[in-house]
Amino acid sequence: MNAPVNQTDPLILFMPSGKRGHFPVGTPVLDAARQLGVYVESVCGGRATCGRCQIEVQEGNFAKHKIVSSNDHISPRGPKEERYDRVRGLPEHRRLSCSATIQGDLVIDVPQDTVVNAQVVRKAAVDRHIERNPAIQLCYVEVDEPDMHKPLGDLDRLKVALEKEWGWKNLLIAPHLIPQIQKILRTKLPDQPEVTEGKWGVTAAVHRDTDSSRPFITAVYPGLKNEAYGIACDIGSTTIAMHLVSLLSGRIVASSGAPNPQIRFGEDLMSRVSYVMMNPDGREAMTKAVREAVNNLIGKVCDQGGVDRHDILDSVFVANPIMHHLFLGIDPTELGQAPFALAASGALQYWAHEIDIDINGGGRLYTLPCIAGHVGADAAGAALSEGPYRQDKMMLLVDVGTNAEIILGNRTRVVAASSPTGPAFEGAEISGGQRAAPGAIERVRIDPETLEPKFRVIGVDKWSDEEGFEEAAGEVGVTGICGSAIIEVVAEMYLTGIISEDGVVDGTLAARSPRIFQHGRTFSYLLRDGEPRLVITQRDVRAIQLAKAALYAGVKLLMEKQGVDHVDMIRFAGAFGTFIDPKYAMVLGLIPDCDLAEVKAVGNASGTGALMALLNRGHRREIEDEVHRIEKIETALEPHFQQIFIDAMALPNKVDPFPRLAEQVKLPPRKVLEESASDGPPRRRSRDERAARRPR
Amino acid sequence: MNAPVNQTDPLILFMPSGKRGHFPVGTPVLDAARQLGVYVESVCGGRATCGRCQIEVQEGNFAKHKIVSSNDHISPRGPKEERYDRVRGLPEHRRLSCSATIQGDLVIDVPQDTVVNAQVVRKAAVDRHIERNPAIQLCYVEVDEPDMHKPLGDLDRLKVALEKEWGWKNLLIAPHLIPQIQKILRTKLPDQPEVTEGKWGVTAAVHRDTDSSRPFITAVYPGLKNEAYGIACDIGSTTIAMHLVSLLSGRIVASSGAPNPQIRFGEDLMSRVSYVMMNPDGREAMTKAVREAVNNLIGKVCDQGGVDRHDILDSVFVANPIMHHLFLGIDPTELGQAPFALAASGALQYWAHEIDIDINGGGRLYTLPCIAGHVGADAAGAALSEGPYRQDKMMLLVDVGTNAEIILGNRTRVVAASSPTGPAFEGAEISGGQRAAPGAIERVRIDPETLEPKFRVIGVDKWSDEEGFEEAAGEVGVTGICGSAIIEVVAEMYLTGIISEDGVVDGTLAARSPRIFQHGRTFSYLLRDGEPRLVITQRDVRAIQLAKAALYAGVKLLMEKQGVDHVDMIRFAGAFGTFIDPKYAMVLGLIPDCDLAEVKAVGNASGTGALMALLNRGHRREIEDEVHRIEKIETALEPHFQQIFIDAMALPNKVDPFPRLAEQVKLPPRKVLEESASDGPPRRRSRDERAARRPR
Repeated sequence: MNAPVNQTDPLILFMPSGKRGHFPVGTPVLDAARQLGVYVESVCGGRATCGRCQIEVQEGNFAKHKIVSSNDHISPRGPKEERYDRVRGLPEHRRLSCSATIQGDLVIDVPQDTVVNAQVVRKAAVDRHIERNPAIQLCYVEVDEPDMHKPLGDLDRLKVALEKEWGWKNLLIAPHLIPQIQKILRTKLPDQPEVTEGKWGVTAAVHRDTDSSRPFITAVYPGLKNEAYGIACDIGSTTIAMHLVSLLSGRIVASSGAPNPQIRFGEDLMSRVSYVMMNPDGREAMTKAVREAVNNLIGKVCDQGGVDRHDILDSVFVANPIMHHLFLGIDPTELGQAPFALAASGALQYWAHEIDIDINGGGRLYTLPCIAGHVGADAAGAALSEGPYRQDKMMLLVDVGTNAEIILGNRTRVVAASSPTGPAFEGAEISGGQRAAPGAIERVRIDPETLEPKFRVIGVDKWSDEEGFEEAAGEVGVTGICGSAIIEVVAEMYLTGIISEDGVVDGTLAARSPRIFQHGRTFSYLLRDGEPRLVITQRDVRAIQLAKAALYAGVKLLMEKQGVDHVDMIRFAGAFGTFIDPKYAMVLGLIPDCDLAEVKAVGNASGTGALMALLNRGHRREIEDEVHRIEKIETALEPHFQQIFIDAMALPNKVDPFPRLAEQVKLPPRKVLEESASDGPPRRRSRDERAARRPR
Repeated sequence: MNAPVNQTDPLILFMPSGKRGHFPVGTPVLDAARQLGVYVESVCGGRATCGRCQIEVQEGNFAKHKIVSSNDHISPRGPKEERYDRVRGLPEHRRLSCSATIQGDLVIDVPQDTVVNAQVVRKAAVDRHIERNPAIQLCYVEVDEPDMHKPLGDLDRLKVALEKEWGWKNLLIAPHLIPQIQKILRTKLPDQPEVTEGKWGVTAAVHRDTDSSRPFITAVYPGLKNEAYGIACDIGSTTIAMHLVSLLSGRIVASSGAPNPQIRFGEDLMSRVSYVMMNPDGREAMTKAVREAVNNLIGKVCDQGGVDRHDILDSVFVANPIMHHLFLGIDPTELGQAPFALAASGALQYWAHEIDIDINGGGRLYTLPCIAGHVGADAAGAALSEGPYRQDKMMLLVDVGTNAEIILGNRTRVVAASSPTGPAFEGAEISGGQRAAPGAIERVRIDPETLEPKFRVIGVDKWSDEEGFEEAAGEVGVTGICGSAIIEVVAEMYLTGIISEDGVVDGTLAARSPRIFQHGRTFSYLLRDGEPRLVITQRDVRAIQLAKAALYAGVKLLMEKQGVDHVDMIRFAGAFGTFIDPKYAMVLGLIPDCDLAEVKAVGNASGTGALMALLNRGHRREIEDEVHRIEKIETALEPHFQQIFIDAMALPNKVDPFPRLAEQVKLPPRKVLEESASDGPPRRRSRDERAARRPR
């Protein structure tokens, strides 16, 4: 197959991939890229009309690579490139690699900053390249016009052209296209580049997901079609998040979210399962609601991006198991009871219209695999995004919601579990709790001497003790406490000694500060006087303790499975992780001890995983393989889960040390209080008394 | 892979395939069959519950094969077979090959006469074995019940079982099954054989058409499902014909037909194309009508066979190009004008529901490829059935309808054409013509001396000159002349000298018989006096001449392409061919000279081809390959078509000799008349005058 490499031929180095090789003088740069496996897009098949294959020569002496690269080492612009420049415009140093040929040593830059990106630079926090290898490829071809002497049908001649020009064999076609094919082939577009005489120029979208599947023609357009889009969608219990992305450049065109309308059937997952069990049409109603919401959200991102929804040719979805089932029209009842059997755990492939998703008529839909009955395709998406199985170090990946998904591992072994943390972290079940929204307190500090609090409110820049806070807050008001602040206030109460390591509010402090006051049989802490009056009660502290203990116990069990006593890095996925301060999470003992610099929020990692699977079908195979390797631990079935959970109720933990945290945060001396059963203050226990109960 | 064959091991010969091999003592007979590629069905996977794998030992000394075969050379019935016998009944000499093992030399008969047939014996005229290798396979498996420690989904464990027990890899699933899978797996059937503890017994239907396609799970049933059906359907312009067949045994369960309701939009194909061109909703209305008719016909064959239509898992359709397009929802306008471009000529694959065919929700639909714009999937079906490309001899295959499809060839080369014969052969455009139905004259003889006719009528056993004919005919009446009789009466008129070789009614005979009488400027022949009065006019003879000349000219052109001056055998496909007498067809010069013993009617060969493609996916590949090899000749574009056509107007032909026909039929001396332009009798021309005009 490969001609022997001649070392005297020019040496070509492609950046940023770093792939290099010798090629004879006269080789088109695009051919050289293809031979080296460098992804350079091309829709027009080397006709110099789509402009997708742009590259740039880097001039200079690259001593490290022993290359002197110069624009003199590439052929001058030919008539095709000149024509493209006239019609579409080609920046001065840019070349069309299908036309430019190698004349000497070259360092070639495959640019990532324009519409012809071969890789996408993601926004904001997660700066990651997703190498493109989408399941959809646009292929311009010129089809022979019909000839009575060659009775092959129009579709069949299209297939011949696609095989001849692009190498596609055994092509199938989306059935809805069959009745349209003759009209599409016969449509002439006045603004299109000239098509060879006796030929019809059309662009076919070819879908090929797995290599073992036959490729499908999923769309056909008259003339040169130079753009196609995909969506990556994460269906959460409360929010649906979506990216709209160019499949040709990888560029994110729009990102948006919408509430999951299923909330009207039940706030949390289990209440939705109950709704299905209680109502004969419940499943259908919820399926309809979520599909409608997804369709509306597609409309929204398309409006934002100025894209026709029918130009969306591929879609990837992630979701937790119950959302996954309801979205796909599957009754989730089995997921509500042991053994929590998924109807389907593997990746699934559909025509989008089969589940009523309104994109192109030949649009495809792919769902990532689920890991287990409580660890869904969303967790698989996060795993794909953060890749614990790609790490040498031990990575803890947690996605905290009503249910927390926990994945722990490295390239040797990955284990996963889920923990029912409940909605406390989201502000529910907390007396002054609310969802994160303008007016919600998001940050809290307590002065260790005066025990006076200060806080910050979403939508207001100033701290509550700063000049002009009240005026600034006046507009949005102070309405409640959101999840991140609940974690901070409980952690600060612990750091300032207001609560003991067992989480008991120390009533003796009532003497020191009026903010600690008796409330029935227990004590509370007054965070803010006024309207509304915001109080952290003993019950609130208990709710947070239960939630964090559930999460930590799950993590701890996985650490035991891995035989490690600490983790090297922690990734918080999901909105929750974005807003909490890792330090306070660790003070609370929500996560195990770790170098704080190695604790990072990664945003909607599930959505990022969906995006990766959308832009590169290799990532689909990657996660399909990995989910089989991930060991699922059913925490509730582990015999000592109960003890680990009880130990994890303490702050940060009754038995586990936090040496790395202690280096950066001054932890209070241990103070053990018992929650009073009388009206009096809680009884103080000595450390020795406590120590005696620790397991060895 | 294969263990070395030990010549001292028992020798096993399978009949009727004749495949043989040595196998160690103790090998199950089913395994031996599989290893030799002998098709023995099995649904239960060797559990001795489905009874599909029955075989019989042939006892005796088979000297030719050097085998002494005896029931002592097979293991005695074990407990599994005894149980099957108790529950379902197993005939005395029958054995279940999954349980019976080889103990010595054996001749094994794979029976074809029961529900466990490996081959189907077709009915009536066409006695042919269709070796079975259907696209659908039923596979019983026992699926692990869910286990919290192994989070694989229900579907995924079903796939694991199908891979483990049946070797299916990379299975996809029909999307509509995904929401049903949990309920199906959890359904327990009381009358089913016991399923292993902790397992769910289900039967999956796996569809695999081409080897390059990934197999699909298309249906799943609780317990052991032991039957699946398919339909083979030929959509003709006037009639839709259908077979309902067991995919497991190949047995034809029911065959039926129904009129094509599109007739209300236009009698012939071109008038239907016109209807589409003139009416905005015309295509849709005709598509809907034909699909409804197919669905109704499915209901009819299912009623006849006592089969639930949802047990139909596969379907194969053939049709002429315009019916093909209308059935598939494709606008046929392009087929009504040069260059007669088919939207799709290749074989197509659908889910049946995609084109509104109401069978099982996962039922598949396959259409045979078309050969060209006027030679459709029906002709491809006939080609598959009769297989000119499988012959050493030169075979002419004709399907005569409003349009005649002509295929001529042998294993070296096959050519095809279509000829617009018009509806004359079907009784249209003939003064007394009608479709074949009770009361229609179907046979005609004319006494050469008296010129008196006798005839037979459909539905009446007696000839018209026999005693009691009038009484017998009284019930059905004599209503008109159908196609076969039109051919016979014109041929008889020629044989008795009533018409000349140029087809002119000889007015001079009016003097001999009152049956010849003047009618305007030409003469007619009175076939029957009474009500209705049936007359063969000069115009009728001309219509038949035009039709037969069109057909013959097409045949002649193909013979020229093949470089042959005669054909070795002729196959008449279609209803027309079933009723006409080959001798008269040849006298008329409708077909070329050939040994009459080699002229055969093969019935609905298109439908037989569809049946073959239904029962054996290998036949799909066969015809897909062959259509590419068949050369399509566009007769109208051949420069001397006109001359050939004019020569073919004569009876039997102006230039071509019919030596083989002349051996069996006394052809009249040549008599050349000119159709009179005056009121007088036509002028008689000498043979010499005619001979002078013959090409050399």
